[in-house]
Amino acid sequence: MSKVLLGPTTQIYPMPAFIIGANVNGKPNFMTAAWSGIANGEPPMISVAIRPHRYTHKGITENSTFSVNIPSIDQAKEVDYCGIVSGAKANKAEDCKFNVFYGKLGTAPLIEQCPINLECRVVHILKLNSHSLFIGQVEETHIAESCLTNGEPDFKKINPIVYTTEPSRQYLAYGELIGKAYSIGLEIKKEK
Amino acid sequence: MSKVLLGPTTQIYPMPAFIIGANVNGKPNFMTAAWSGIANGEPPMISVAIRPHRYTHKGITENSTFSVNIPSIDQAKEVDYCGIVSGAKANKAEDCKFNVFYGKLGTAPLIEQCPINLECRVVHILKLNSHSLFIGQVEETHIAESCLTNGEPDFKKINPIVYTTEPSRQYLAYGELIGKAYSIGLEIKKEK
Repeated sequence: MSKVLLGPTTQIYPMPAFIIGANVNGKPNFMTAAWSGIANGEPPMISVAIRPHRYTHKGITENSTFSVNIPSIDQAKEVDYCGIVSGAKANKAEDCKFNVFYGKLGTAPLIEQCPINLECRVVHILKLNSHSLFIGQVEETHIAESCLTNGEPDFKKINPIVYTTEPSRQYLAYGELIGKAYSIGLEIKKEK
Repeated sequence: MSKVLLGPTTQIYPMPAFIIGANVNGKPNFMTAAWSGIANGEPPMISVAIRPHRYTHKGITENSTFSVNIPSIDQAKEVDYCGIVSGAKANKAEDCKFNVFYGKLGTAPLIEQCPINLECRVVHILKLNSHSLFIGQVEETHIAESCLTNGEPDFKKINPIVYTTEPSRQYLAYGELIGKAYSIGLEIKKEK
């Protein structure tokens, strides 16, 4: 497999498309973030990278809380809108007809239409260069009852969005099953 | 949409399944990591959360370098193997028949079979609770020439893996196109 060099990039696949929520000046605001992932297991922590000039950055800094709203493909249009428009210029919750509610943290706005919502309390802010990396400890998980099977999350019911960055810039659904984890690798173990 | 509470969790969708590479005691070792994402834009940085007892943790700490190898669905079996077995007990590069090469950093082993490889230099280590969050500045990107279209990365040729966590634990392919980013959200703007 012949390789070519692209220089320093953030070419990773897949990326998520989460809707990050924060109260700004006492009102709920939302932005789309693909630069987010799990940072710690016990206790659960999520990282999200946000540029300091963003309206949401101000809200997270104000309240030291934010939400991670996991959209399904049904919210793709809203995900995109929240990534295009600034909360400084529009009431995105209203424009997207989000039913906003609050959980135990009180200041992390949650989107009822998203199948999963994580309430996060900021425990670290790492000022990198272009972005601040917020590390939020997950204090509560809300999941749609309709997305459970036998009391457990069922990704086929959640129907999540996969985001693909430059140059294609697309939202996609999950595709076909390739294999079971902690299972297909055992074949290599046997082959040895 | 009626919601139920699950307590603090890391229920996010989608997650990646990257193969993280590090030299340990001078030999290439690889582990699978789903807890990884973009941390900064300019310069490009990637975060990866690793438990301190992991063999790869030792290697990254030793050399202050690591690689992020982005697998395609063709490497699903190897991805799974590198998540099951410890480098302390097996030569995973050999077991998986990886063709290992090195780039400009010299100590971050890269897997030729993976369509994309990022060479990272550690710029921060955030000791969280169960995990260390390594922040690596991307120094170089290697991409398979066969995964380019008009000189740009083409995700359809990369054919990446999506990982889905507990309880299903599956590797999946990308699915159908839901919509174009920076495009479908404009409908909401117009509706206003």
